[in-house]
Order: sequence, then structure tokens, then C-alpha cells
Amino acid sequence: MTLDEARALDAADPLRGVRQRFALPAGLIYLDGNSLGALPKATPAALARVVEGEWGGDLIAGWNAHGWIDAAKRVGARVAPLIGARDDEVLVADSTSVNLFKLLAAACMANPERTTILSEPGNFPTDLYMAQGVAGMLAGRRVRTVAFDDLIAAIDEDVAVVLLTHVHYKTGHKRDMAAITAAAHAQGALVLWDLSHSVGAVAVDLNGCSADLAVGCGYKYLNGGPGAPAFLYVAQALQERLRSPLSGWFGHAAPFEFGDEYAPAPGIARFQCGTPPILGIAALEAGIATFDGVDTRALFAKAQALCDLYIALVEARCEGFVLASPRDAARRGSHVSFAHPEAYAICQALIARRVVGDFRAPDVLRMGFTPLYTRFEDVWRAVDTLVDVMRRRAWDDPAYRVRATVT
Amino acid sequence: MTLDEARALDAADPLRGVRQRFALPAGLIYLDGNSLGALPKATPAALARVVEGEWGGDLIAGWNAHGWIDAAKRVGARVAPLIGARDDEVLVADSTSVNLFKLLAAACMANPERTTILSEPGNFPTDLYMAQGVAGMLAGRRVRTVAFDDLIAAIDEDVAVVLLTHVHYKTGHKRDMAAITAAAHAQGALVLWDLSHSVGAVAVDLNGCSADLAVGCGYKYLNGGPGAPAFLYVAQALQERLRSPLSGWFGHAAPFEFGDEYAPAPGIARFQCGTPPILGIAALEAGIATFDGVDTRALFAKAQALCDLYIALVEARCEGFVLASPRDAARRGSHVSFAHPEAYAICQALIARRVVGDFRAPDVLRMGFTPLYTRFEDVWRAVDTLVDVMRRRAWDDPAYRVRATVT
Repeated sequence: MTLDEARALDAADPLRGVRQRFALPAGLIYLDGNSLGALPKATPAALARVVEGEWGGDLIAGWNAHGWIDAAKRVGARVAPLIGARDDEVLVADSTSVNLFKLLAAACMANPERTTILSEPGNFPTDLYMAQGVAGMLAGRRVRTVAFDDLIAAIDEDVAVVLLTHVHYKTGHKRDMAAITAAAHAQGALVLWDLSHSVGAVAVDLNGCSADLAVGCGYKYLNGGPGAPAFLYVAQALQERLRSPLSGWFGHAAPFEFGDEYAPAPGIARFQCGTPPILGIAALEAGIATFDGVDTRALFAKAQALCDLYIALVEARCEGFVLASPRDAARRGSHVSFAHPEAYAICQALIARRVVGDFRAPDVLRMGFTPLYTRFEDVWRAVDTLVDVMRRRAWDDPAYRVRATVT
Repeated sequence: MTLDEARALDAADPLRGVRQRFALPAGLIYLDGNSLGALPKATPAALARVVEGEWGGDLIAGWNAHGWIDAAKRVGARVAPLIGARDDEVLVADSTSVNLFKLLAAACMANPERTTILSEPGNFPTDLYMAQGVAGMLAGRRVRTVAFDDLIAAIDEDVAVVLLTHVHYKTGHKRDMAAITAAAHAQGALVLWDLSHSVGAVAVDLNGCSADLAVGCGYKYLNGGPGAPAFLYVAQALQERLRSPLSGWFGHAAPFEFGDEYAPAPGIARFQCGTPPILGIAALEAGIATFDGVDTRALFAKAQALCDLYIALVEARCEGFVLASPRDAARRGSHVSFAHPEAYAICQALIARRVVGDFRAPDVLRMGFTPLYTRFEDVWRAVDTLVDVMRRRAWDDPAYRVRATVT
């Protein structure tokens, strides 16, 4: 594959025009949209409209006049088609961590005779930490982690909820949502899927898999900005059975009656907690709007093709990198990890050459491919830069070994 | 008091220039800054700088390059002087509701032999609802409400934490923080203060009162915008004793080591949970900057004077209104409530005449006075409009009886 061949793929890409929806810095090859999505060009004006027009112009009246009061449900409904959910099954709220707590606790409390939250070691840290927080509050509950290959066999009648990330943040492994959900249901357990590294780049069909619960991140492939509000999904059939212990006034059946006793709202609204973050939701809505009119089948196929090209080029042109992600695109998300003992310094050397990927401890160089704006040419140039870094040993510089706080 | 006399008070007000920091709609008399603060003129540019400059320009590198990683502590430290706290005792995070859960649960779990969260009936709803959520998760715990006048006597060795709002959202009663805190400590109980209707308009001295825990709202007198991030306070001496059950990765001692076991960060940082909402924090920071250089003693004195004038004018010029707030400014916050059987329709008639206050069920007309931007002239004109509404029976219009969803 030459640069011209990569460019030919871009020229033939039916989604090539979508990149124009983003304000990408000139000359930067950004392969970290799975840590923080790029800025949509429409976001500044959308925020200005809410801030100056709605807040500045109408003040408290904005809650009704501009639909702030329903923003969490309205924008949740815009996430729904990306994850195979019904409009009334998704809510934008809080952070992924807080939403994990709500749904894990609700699932445990709805199944009081079951004591276990089952997950895998090496799951994304906040998922495990929030599960530990839930177990620490509920008497007699525990978090059990079992290596993924043994996980299905470990689902027994003591498991209240299985907690898994659909696409693993480090390796990019995509779990078989349908099979795992079915196995859990056969044992009477629920499953909570973290879609943070899936939504917007990978096909997800929650309803088609009879999925129970899910959460996901707004600032990765949804392009909602740093620390954007997250989302949560509760299958319609479960909504009335579950109660969030984060029983804040915005999840109340009649919040403006100001009663002393909590009564959950019907449906998905009960999983709201405090006053919704209107500015953050506005930015997230602009981020999700970058999917408008996009054929998601083509989008997800492009993500796989970008990853395939990256793997092929690294393996053809670089030595010493060991693929840490599935080779089979059907079992992979939209990022690819290679292990290399000098991964940290290599990542820093690439960033200095304006190719932005990510490092994940201890030795993983992770590249994320956002099909909305990543070109095949970008993949080619990124690997070409990597080849140059390796050939010159450019990574072997003390400056590249200083560990900054990274995300 | 005539309009000219009110204008003379404004001319003599040392804070009169601060109003220019806000983008207030022309001709509107806004007396609901305790529901949603006005837009600071600097906020749009501050947000544009973060969105276009930092996020758009530097993408993932913004976490380190622009201090996003420390934003929760940095902006928390800017709240601290408004509430008599040390810089390292305040954190901006999540919503008020979520912060209530964190601190109530932490307080209960640190005192496992005590079973009771004690509060008053009619406390702000989300405070009671979140307490109910905590009690629902922790075996053997309960929420007990006792009428405020009997509350101190009800603090016994079974009370883990007393939950009170410093300034009552409906009546404006200001509680004696020092006395109640001392009474609780004498019984070995902690106190959690909700400062939502205090911070920025009323003197608060947490350290001076030996206060344990507090939370508060960012979108009222702090002018952070609709659904702005909230804040929390934990006294330095308590920080290492308490653990938040919302144990998300941003509260971890080493979040980017991606370990499987939660270990709380030292100090106030452990009360973070998920990824901080950078856009919301940026807007809140601009809101708090409207206090820069302001003499808060003069500010809080002005708030009392505005309220005093409002009470005097209503009582002198209107019939049928019964003061539902303390007459003594020392026992009152910065809003004033009058009860009237037609309060809802009167409030609507005032809004139609561009005097914006708030209604609180069942019969309260509530006016909030934000000393940063409310003028004595505004108070005079608001009451003059109220006089006109009452004289013409302008409130007696079916259109003003339709209850919208209000906040």
C-alpha cells in the first residue's frame, strides 16, 4: 500500500465529506478520538446560542422556553439509534462513573438474594472502582473478577449483574454481547455493558441482544467535549423494576411539588439525579449531530478498514511490535494496540511529530480510528512517521521518558 | 421611600459598578438569581477560549496543557473564600444531589454504630431524597425528620449526621451554623450544610463554625449557568477519615496507573468521581470571577439592605401579603417570601410585566436579591409593579393560572 493508494481509498470513501464537520488542527494526525473526540465546527455556535441567546436572554424562563427541562431525554433519544435502543430507553446524565453506580446499585437492590457483581480483571478502572463502591455500601455484596475466558462459566445463581466493557479500552477486544447476555439471562443475572469505546464507531444492537443495562461516554466518539455528560440505557421492560439510589429531584415523579418523600418518575426519567448540565448537554448534542445523515453501516465498515490498514502497515514496515488487539475485525473495536517495550517513549516521539496516539501502561501503543474524520491517508502517514521514529531511534531521548499525567 | 430615594441609594452603593459585569436583558427586573444567576459578560469568551482554543487546538493534550486535570480543585479553591474554607477543602464536582450522596454516605459509613440521618421536614427536596437514597442502601439506616424548633434536642448518640440547608429555599430562614454544629459535635454527630441559597449572597464561615461538611450549587448566586457543576467541602481534619462510595477513577490516588483496586487519593481529591466536566467548570469559573475584587462584607450588607427595602415597601404599599421570611436580617438569607393565596397568578402577572420572581407551592411569592447586580431601583420598581398588579387585579386572569413546569 502506497500513499497514493491510501489516497485513492479516501477518494472512494462515501463518508469523505463528513471530515469537514470537524475543526481539526492543520497538519495534525489525530488518532486519539477514543480518548477525546475532535471539536465539531458547529459546537461553538451551538454553545453561544444556548449561553447568550437562551441563558442570557431568557434566564430562568429557559427551562421551559428552550426545552432544558427535557434536554436529558431529548439528547438521550439522539444516542439511541447509535446503540440499537428505543428513544425512551436512553438518558444523558452525569458521568459514566456515576451512571455505573446508579445502574449497578439498582440491579443489585432488585435482586437482593444475589450477592455478586461479576467482572473481569483489567476492565476499565472506573468500572471496577464503582462496582467496589456499590459493594461497599450494600451489606453482603462483593465484586468478583474472573479472567474473561472463564467468565461465562462463572455466571451462577449468585450473580446479580455482570459488568463488562463492550470494547476493551486497552486491547480493543469486542465482547459478544448477544452470547454473554443470553448466558447471563439463563442464570437469572443481568448484564451492564459499558459502551464507552463502542458508541459511534462500532455497531451496537442493545435491543437485538436483549441487553438489560448500559452506560457510555460522551466525550470519545460522540465528540461532546472534555468531560461531556455521559449516557445510560435501561431496557424498557426493566425500567419500572429498578430504582436508582441516587434519587435526586430530577428523577422524581413530580419534582416541582417539592414533597418530602422521593417517588420515582415513570420510565427512564427516574434515572436522572440532579439538575441537568445544560451547557454540557448542548455541546454533546452538537457532537452527536455530526452523525446526522451518516450511513452507520458504512461508517462502522470504514472503522474496521482503517484498523485493518493500520495493522497491515505496521506489521509490514515495523519490527518489534506485537499486535495486542484481535486481528479479526469482527472481534475488534475501532482502536488497535501494539505492545512494544518502549511504547511510552515511542508515543511521545510520535506526538512531537504531530501524530497523536495514546499509551496505556505498561507497554501498549494505542491508536484510535474515528471513522467520521480519520482518513486512510492519515493512517498511512502515521505509520510512515512511526517507521521514521523507529529507524532513527528518535524515541531514545530522555525527554520522551518523562511521564506526564496522561489520560 | 420614593424612586428618587432608591436611586440615591444606588448612587451611593460602592458596588454599583459590578452590575456592568453582567449581560442583563434591557428592561427586565430579575429577582430570581437564586434560581438561576444571570449571564456574566465574560462567560461567552471564556467558553470560546476553552472550546475553540483549548479543546479544538490541543485536543487530548488539553488535560495537561490547560490544567483541565486540576480544574476541579482550582475552581474549588476559588469558591473557598466565599464560604470561609481553606483552598484545599473545596472541590467543584457533579451536581449538588450527587455531592449530597457522597458526603452523607461517607459520614454514615465512618460512623457505623449510628443509624440516623437527621433533617427537617420541608428541607429542599433533593436533600431529603438523596438522604433517603443513602439510607436505602446502607442496612439499618434511616432518615428522621424533626421540626426545626425541636431539631437540636433530637440530636442524640444515634445520629450520624445532621443534614440542613443553611438558608431555607422557601422561607429564607438562615440557620445558626455555629450553634447547631456545636450541638451536634457535643453528641458526636457530624453536620452537612447545604449552602445552595447562601454562597455568594450571605456570609458563610465554615472554618469559623468548625463545620464538617457542605455542598452547594453553582448556578444560583455563583452565576455558573443552567445546571452548572456544584461544589463540596470537607473539613481538612475529616478528609482522611472519609471515603466516598462514588469511588470513580478521578478520585483514585493514581488514576492513570489503571489498577484494578480503588485507593482513594489523599485530601479533597478523593471526593471526585468521574471525568470532570471541563466546559461546565469553565463557565462556573467565569461566574465566580464576577466576585473578583468585590468587598464581600459590603456585598452581604447590600443583600440585607435590598431585602429590608423590599419588605418595607411591600408592607407599606400592598395588602394581603403575609411575610413568610424572618424580619431580622441577621436571621435571613438573600431572598424574601410573602404568602398570598393568589401567589401563583400574581407571580405570573409580574413576569408578564417583566418583573421575574418565583413561586413556591403552595402560596409563596419569592423574590431573590443578588447583590452583585440587583439595584435598589429594581426593588422599588418591582414593588411598584406589584402594587399596580394588585390594584388592577391584573393577576385575576385565567392565563395566569395555568401551571407550567417551573423551577
